[in-house]
Amino acid sequence: MTQDAEPRLRILLGSSIAMGPGKADLLDAIGEAGSISGAARRMGMSYRRAWLLVETMNRSFKTPLVQAERGGRRGGGTSLTGAGREALRRYRAMEARAQKTLARDMEQFSKLLNPLSGD
Amino acid sequence: MTQDAEPRLRILLGSSIAMGPGKADLLDAIGEAGSISGAARRMGMSYRRAWLLVETMNRSFKTPLVQAERGGRRGGGTSLTGAGREALRRYRAMEARAQKTLARDMEQFSKLLNPLSGD
Repeated sequence: MTQDAEPRLRILLGSSIAMGPGKADLLDAIGEAGSISGAARRMGMSYRRAWLLVETMNRSFKTPLVQAERGGRRGGGTSLTGAGREALRRYRAMEARAQKTLARDMEQFSKLLNPLSGD
Repeated sequence: MTQDAEPRLRILLGSSIAMGPGKADLLDAIGEAGSISGAARRMGMSYRRAWLLVETMNRSFKTPLVQAERGGRRGGGTSLTGAGREALRRYRAMEARAQKTLARDMEQFSKLLNPLSGD
């Protein structure tokens, strides 16, 4: 199957990946599902893996990006904090800017790639 | 220890990472060391890991990036092919362009990060 190459952006803090495509997608999924377990199911990953990714993000930022909701109608659920929504928005903006800026370079780079090799 | 956050770029082809910071550094090291084993030592990784990264790269590109040298003064060594030097040069150029383009965004994003958390 022929596949297009695409540039992906990660934000490293020391050796930790503070934010990247997988973590951003997980934040989106948590916002939509309202729980880590629901988000993990949507993404086809284990609860443990999703929880570890959330832990890494919460540690990497000054303010946690994801919080447990206590009480109320959706007691027991999980939601994005204001910092979570801001980090996600800023990451998506950087991702879009990088893709736009690198579009011409990627065209040239893609000519070197073997389009039949992607898994 | 306080650490600056930095954006890193990966080129994905399907689910394979055709090129990224670690593979680019490995290509540099192979070019300098003249062998995969020497490059692995410089980078503090196992020979097996370096070999697997080279295999992934060679499969991802139309022309292998790394080749065994046969005979001659440095017989038995390993060197970058023309395609290897071109892929490395183009990746480094994209990396630099992404970092320059995202510098302002990264300043803002970094304010959200916990500088004490990097590993």
